[in-house]
Amino acid sequence: MREFYDDQLDALDADLVAMTTAVRFSLARASAALLDGDLGAAEMVISGDAVIDAARESCESDAISLIATQQPVATDLRRVVAGLRIAGDLERIGDLAVHIAKLARMRMPDPAVPDAARPTVAEMARVAGGMLESVAIVLGTHDLDAAAALLSADDEMDGLYRTMFHRLLGDSWTGGVEAAVDVALLARYYERTGDHAVSIARRVFYQVTGEVPHV
Amino acid sequence: MREFYDDQLDALDADLVAMTTAVRFSLARASAALLDGDLGAAEMVISGDAVIDAARESCESDAISLIATQQPVATDLRRVVAGLRIAGDLERIGDLAVHIAKLARMRMPDPAVPDAARPTVAEMARVAGGMLESVAIVLGTHDLDAAAALLSADDEMDGLYRTMFHRLLGDSWTGGVEAAVDVALLARYYERTGDHAVSIARRVFYQVTGEVPHV
Repeated sequence: MREFYDDQLDALDADLVAMTTAVRFSLARASAALLDGDLGAAEMVISGDAVIDAARESCESDAISLIATQQPVATDLRRVVAGLRIAGDLERIGDLAVHIAKLARMRMPDPAVPDAARPTVAEMARVAGGMLESVAIVLGTHDLDAAAALLSADDEMDGLYRTMFHRLLGDSWTGGVEAAVDVALLARYYERTGDHAVSIARRVFYQVTGEVPHV
Repeated sequence: MREFYDDQLDALDADLVAMTTAVRFSLARASAALLDGDLGAAEMVISGDAVIDAARESCESDAISLIATQQPVATDLRRVVAGLRIAGDLERIGDLAVHIAKLARMRMPDPAVPDAARPTVAEMARVAGGMLESVAIVLGTHDLDAAAALLSADDEMDGLYRTMFHRLLGDSWTGGVEAAVDVALLARYYERTGDHAVSIARRVFYQVTGEVPHV
């Protein structure tokens, strides 16, 4: 019985890792749509979101049925509840990728990001992608060092976010109002992605140690 | 036994209604901070967010222990799972109120919203407040007409969001880049509030009928 139960818990983790991979590809495609003007990539992100939403529903119903049938307690219950919330964070990252892809598509064939903002936005996209790779590792291994590294990667993201706003609002900005608004929203989408990745790392940390990380 | 169980289910609903009230006050204060330059209101929103976060934790642990100890099925299970997610939506609305309050505080003593954008932002604040009043009614009564009305109130919010961007990006905008970026983010925060309210209405609809609303 315990063996079947462990299998169910492991299956939930495996589903979350698979969902992370789907979300990571979606965000990478959204960034390609944004930075390379790849319309096909934008369309794939937008139409593929239903698959991510369905994966969340599936993780959630597995978690609920596990709670209802196995009545887990202590560490096991923490693990299942963390899984429920992690699936929610991953779905939100998928939604943010859709926002990025839609904004990119709306401006095509023009780039949504003017040259002056491009390096910082590209860096935000790179950091966000790296954070999602780390999320997959953290979920797959429950490695606390990887979780802690993720928390500090978010400092980099927050720094880029501040840099972006500083530039947008500085005297040297010549991109005009529309591009400024676009870039502000894009910066926010990437920064929110980082927040959700951090939230997942914190939940794994709590799930493993029973303590809230101090970072 | 069933009586105790029903009491637990009702207590979960009552907690969600109380959480809605807290979130509604928080958003109203954030709007006062923004539109009336009320610094005290901004501070209350920011410091009060921990209470909303704690309320979510409490709703969540009540829901989980209900699932684990009572093993609800069918309609009852749907009700508890909906409660879990609704608490998450309410917490996010609380976070959005904090974002609004922080933006308002950052610009004080200047207004964050220039005169040209003020009527539309004020209208978004009013619609968002009304939607949260409806959320409390929907959660308290499970009235499907009220849930349907909430879905159409969101059309009004989406219309205001589009109006705001149209104005920001039109030739007549003289507010400059900083104000445009502020207003774009504020518009997004209010519009996201509406999305979460709709999400709650849809969950109640599903919980009562077992069907996803078509609106």
